[in-house]
Amino acid sequence: MQQPVVGIIMGSQSDWPTMEKAAEMLDRLGVAYETRVVSAHRTPDLLFEYAKTASERGLQVIIAGAGGAAHLPGMVASQTPVPVLGVPVQSRALNGLDSLLSIVQMPAGVAVGTLAIGQAGAGNAGLLAAQIVGLQQPAVREAIEDFRRAQTESVLAHPDPAVS
Amino acid sequence: MQQPVVGIIMGSQSDWPTMEKAAEMLDRLGVAYETRVVSAHRTPDLLFEYAKTASERGLQVIIAGAGGAAHLPGMVASQTPVPVLGVPVQSRALNGLDSLLSIVQMPAGVAVGTLAIGQAGAGNAGLLAAQIVGLQQPAVREAIEDFRRAQTESVLAHPDPAVS
Amino acid sequence: MQQPVVGIIMGSQSDWPTMEKAAEMLDRLGVAYETRVVSAHRTPDLLFEYAKTASERGLQVIIAGAGGAAHLPGMVASQTPVPVLGVPVQSRALNGLDSLLSIVQMPAGVAVGTLAIGQAGAGNAGLLAAQIVGLQQPAVREAIEDFRRAQTESVLAHPDPAVS
Amino acid sequence: MQQPVVGIIMGSQSDWPTMEKAAEMLDRLGVAYETRVVSAHRTPDLLFEYAKTASERGLQVIIAGAGGAAHLPGMVASQTPVPVLGVPVQSRALNGLDSLLSIVQMPAGVAVGTLAIGQAGAGNAGLLAAQIVGLQQPAVREAIEDFRRAQTESVLAHPDPAVS
Amino acid sequence: MQQPVVGIIMGSQSDWPTMEKAAEMLDRLGVAYETRVVSAHRTPDLLFEYAKTASERGLQVIIAGAGGAAHLPGMVASQTPVPVLGVPVQSRALNGLDSLLSIVQMPAGVAVGTLAIGQAGAGNAGLLAAQIVGLQQPAVREAIEDFRRAQTESVLAHPDPAVS
Amino acid sequence: MQQPVVGIIMGSQSDWPTMEKAAEMLDRLGVAYETRVVSAHRTPDLLFEYAKTASERGLQVIIAGAGGAAHLPGMVASQTPVPVLGVPVQSRALNGLDSLLSIVQMPAGVAVGTLAIGQAGAGNAGLLAAQIVGLQQPAVREAIEDFRRAQTESVLAHPDPAVS
Amino acid sequence: MQQPVVGIIMGSQSDWPTMEKAAEMLDRLGVAYETRVVSAHRTPDLLFEYAKTASERGLQVIIAGAGGAAHLPGMVASQTPVPVLGVPVQSRALNGLDSLLSIVQMPAGVAVGTLAIGQAGAGNAGLLAAQIVGLQQPAVREAIEDFRRAQTESVLAHPDPAVS
Amino acid sequence: MQQPVVGIIMGSQSDWPTMEKAAEMLDRLGVAYETRVVSAHRTPDLLFEYAKTASERGLQVIIAGAGGAAHLPGMVASQTPVPVLGVPVQSRALNGLDSLLSIVQMPAGVAVGTLAIGQAGAGNAGLLAAQIVGLQQPAVREAIEDFRRAQTESVLAHPDPAVS
Repeated sequence: MQQPVVGIIMGSQSDWPTMEKAAEMLDRLGVAYETRVVSAHRTPDLLFEYAKTASERGLQVIIAGAGGAAHLPGMVASQTPVPVLGVPVQSRALNGLDSLLSIVQMPAGVAVGTLAIGQAGAGNAGLLAAQIVGLQQPAVREAIEDFRRAQTESVLAHPDPAVS
Repeated sequence: MQQPVVGIIMGSQSDWPTMEKAAEMLDRLGVAYETRVVSAHRTPDLLFEYAKTASERGLQVIIAGAGGAAHLPGMVASQTPVPVLGVPVQSRALNGLDSLLSIVQMPAGVAVGTLAIGQAGAGNAGLLAAQIVGLQQPAVREAIEDFRRAQTESVLAHPDPAVS
Repeated sequence: MQQPVVGIIMGSQSDWPTMEKAAEMLDRLGVAYETRVVSAHRTPDLLFEYAKTASERGLQVIIAGAGGAAHLPGMVASQTPVPVLGVPVQSRALNGLDSLLSIVQMPAGVAVGTLAIGQAGAGNAGLLAAQIVGLQQPAVREAIEDFRRAQTESVLAHPDPAVS
Repeated sequence: MQQPVVGIIMGSQSDWPTMEKAAEMLDRLGVAYETRVVSAHRTPDLLFEYAKTASERGLQVIIAGAGGAAHLPGMVASQTPVPVLGVPVQSRALNGLDSLLSIVQMPAGVAVGTLAIGQAGAGNAGLLAAQIVGLQQPAVREAIEDFRRAQTESVLAHPDPAVS
Repeated sequence: MQQPVVGIIMGSQSDWPTMEKAAEMLDRLGVAYETRVVSAHRTPDLLFEYAKTASERGLQVIIAGAGGAAHLPGMVASQTPVPVLGVPVQSRALNGLDSLLSIVQMPAGVAVGTLAIGQAGAGNAGLLAAQIVGLQQPAVREAIEDFRRAQTESVLAHPDPAVS
Repeated sequence: MQQPVVGIIMGSQSDWPTMEKAAEMLDRLGVAYETRVVSAHRTPDLLFEYAKTASERGLQVIIAGAGGAAHLPGMVASQTPVPVLGVPVQSRALNGLDSLLSIVQMPAGVAVGTLAIGQAGAGNAGLLAAQIVGLQQPAVREAIEDFRRAQTESVLAHPDPAVS
Repeated sequence: MQQPVVGIIMGSQSDWPTMEKAAEMLDRLGVAYETRVVSAHRTPDLLFEYAKTASERGLQVIIAGAGGAAHLPGMVASQTPVPVLGVPVQSRALNGLDSLLSIVQMPAGVAVGTLAIGQAGAGNAGLLAAQIVGLQQPAVREAIEDFRRAQTESVLAHPDPAVS
Repeated sequence: MQQPVVGIIMGSQSDWPTMEKAAEMLDRLGVAYETRVVSAHRTPDLLFEYAKTASERGLQVIIAGAGGAAHLPGMVASQTPVPVLGVPVQSRALNGLDSLLSIVQMPAGVAVGTLAIGQAGAGNAGLLAAQIVGLQQPAVREAIEDFRRAQTESVLAHPDPAVS
């Protein structure tokens, strides 16, 4: 089994139906990853340990998903030089607007690259992670180009929406 | 000098013009406090140490103010049994709505009692901290009653707004 | 039966499915409480009487939940030195954003410690109330530590979200 | 001096620059009114007394202005059969959106007729109060018609905006 | 049959499930009313005719409900001295926030007293209309007092929410 | 078959249930149109080609629908002198508010005439396109007048909402 | 002087600093227009007359700007087959979000093509109006192409933002 | 002069005061970059050319800033395998909420890592770009660690906010 280069973490088991889209994208693009529940609020010590060892364990990107007052992505980013991508999980009352603002509005000095709310964002986090990994791995770059070509062709193959 | 029972912390020196309203209220109500800049993102280790030693150092309430993706109050609350009150500092672009949602929308299991955005919220955090401290200190309770009476009288003393 | 030290009040019977999470948390943490429907708008006299006698009846914290133009927490807080925690109940049209702003945006001089919208907020109100009560009751403090430890272990016991 | 038929109340002296537009409109339309600072949070007893005696004192409409978690209009409405009009005063952080939602989103059973945020709303509260009073006073009705005619003519007199 | 003193109008037949709460309240309080579909956009001529004849036909209050870019209440108000109450009907995409702002944010010079979004607002529009009518009809005033008393008693009869 | 004068394009096949309302309206008003899936992000080259040839192919209006970060309408508009109408498709998390702002808030120099979120907006885009086409085609102008008359009569035919 | 083919109307003289951007654009593109203050609320009869005679007076597009509960564009559109473009004028409290939603969220059956909030939207309304007029006037089409070319060249002429 | 590995582009010269924070951060961290005005709407052909040649020209990250209906980041991302980071520039009317949603809410299949609104976001985009570049350049990684250490020390050096 390949050494993981991407870590997918999330604040709760209940975030998995969203975050598995990131895993599926990385599978498709041939990027090795690990998945882990790490809660900023319920397991802060684990969060620190995970973040502080990420680089030495070979991770090149961390994808962190959380909902509501979503502190996981920003707190991980504060502890590691590894690039962190944040995925706002759709929340119950405010539809993920709270998750989005809690992740994206980071103050100067600690950065989180934030994707869209929900599954589309999770999948795109996988894609962007692969683009970063692909800067060093030609095989991943090619897989991304194949994916792009396939999705373009899928649109072109059904030009008329009235004929689904 | 009295042993502080309330800790006022904030993510940045620039939050002080907001947070000093909490200090002023505690001064007025005779509650001893300490003030400290503790950044969730720039000094995460300090944040953990501060939170983990808060109880043994005699703090009974922590007031934490932060703006934008405001992670300080929630992260402190995750590390201490001491009650945490959060003050959303008014942010530049989104007027503090991001700060408010990042603080108040905590997931189940870790609680932050959140006050209003800006100076009014900071002053009220001081007042609520004093109400908590006052459960054990009759002198504080009396100071609160005096404060309440004074503010009621101040309204009653100028009944007609057209005659300022 | 123990003397209640926390009062859980709500604007309407229909708020109970939200507010019972506060009661469940207090049950779990061994804190005695009472529950009561008190409507700011439909029973204002009861609201005043409840608030004005809260302290002498031994309440140390009041948890008040309401939805829409949620005036209950703030109006109770204006009549008692007892710390008041507010829970925004999720409203039909605006998903609780109206409830949240009506509770949290209190003017200077009367404070409400506000929790998240809905059930997560109600449970956390119970937890924060217990943290306040626990400042004087070692047994409650220990129960909180047990609860914290249990929730940390529950996350650690299922580290991989892909294996639920 | 005429017996006031409209009461203009506000949560704070600082609301007067907004609320005086209501007074100016009533002056213009010949409706007698009184003005008073009544704070829901700082003078709750006064609020109750004001509301409970409003009808017997001859008030036909109450105009209540407040900002932030604006509880004054709804709490007054809960204590009197006199129609209550609410004016959301523009708040510092959230521009009056909090004031608006706190006033307009009243639960079933207690009603507040809400006007626009700020001075336009205050002036219109005066106008709507006059329309209500005018149902019984032909002179007020005529004054309203004159006001309407004047404002129509003022638009028609300057048809071309490029020639101001 | 009594001469209607309140007109309930709405932009579309589909608004009736919301607006019938206004009718039910007026029925309960013994106020005679009429109901009519009047679309600001699809029947502008009818809107003008309705508004311009409202006063002479004996209407003392008009309740107008509409959703989305809700122009009906404001346009009616521009054509009649009769007080107009607006009810924002819950819209599909934006949950009635668009309806609320389109109704309440009237410019200076034409006033609409706005109620809450949806059924609660419609019922309260009926109640506020009755309060206005009741200024001249003692029987309506008594019916309102009965209604108020009944709703207070209904809360007091079930004090404990845990025992429904 | 008539030469199409309106092009209906959309970012995804999944937008068709919304956008077919535009097609239905054009059918009703006798305006020839074509439909096409053109994704700004997945088929940018097709987007450019479509836009750049629109005028010479005889299109007089382009209706473009998209959801989320909806770039299709604005990008098409940047490449053609043909008037472009934008339809915000209702998105999952933010109900189309993101789609609306992404389409309507175009910077100075490239214009998109934006309609309401969802099916109502799509149908109205068809109507507005027909109004533009009708400036040169009397038959379309008459069809619009018939449509308007029919919708007015449909309201007038059922005046009382309580009798559906 | 040329017969105007575009009508620029606005709810108030105070909207002119915004709406003159529409006039400037039409001047630049050689499209004849007229300007007029027409208030939906203060001059509803003028609004109807303006709308009902627009077509016969030769107008091909109407640009309507208004702020707050902005009813002018939609009400004009309900009375004329001429295409109507709406410009949300930036409001004081809510920054034009109320204006935007009041204009764009039109119900099915009456359409307004809405532009961005404020001056950018007003200028673009002028541009879109010219695009519509240009469908029949080759000279306008050429002017638009010149304008487009000039704005492209203006960007290309200063490629490096650090060298302004 | 070093070959640029990061491209900083923006929709308008007026975005430079925001975007220069990205340049300053890259300067500080020793990462070579280029700056360019590329407008999605005014120079779409340049946008395509820039995006399509980015990879072969050696760019490893593109930072794209834009305001309002901000299409630049997403459109660039659709044309290149190079990772794209988006910076929402604060807009006039909606404070950058429109910019944020237009950039972050990308549909599945094309990803933009989005930073905070305004200067903080621009600086963080520079930082995140450096973190990505640093995966391959040890000198950049060390510069980031220095920067992090310096900002931690800067907080620790002034622990008491009351003593600025």
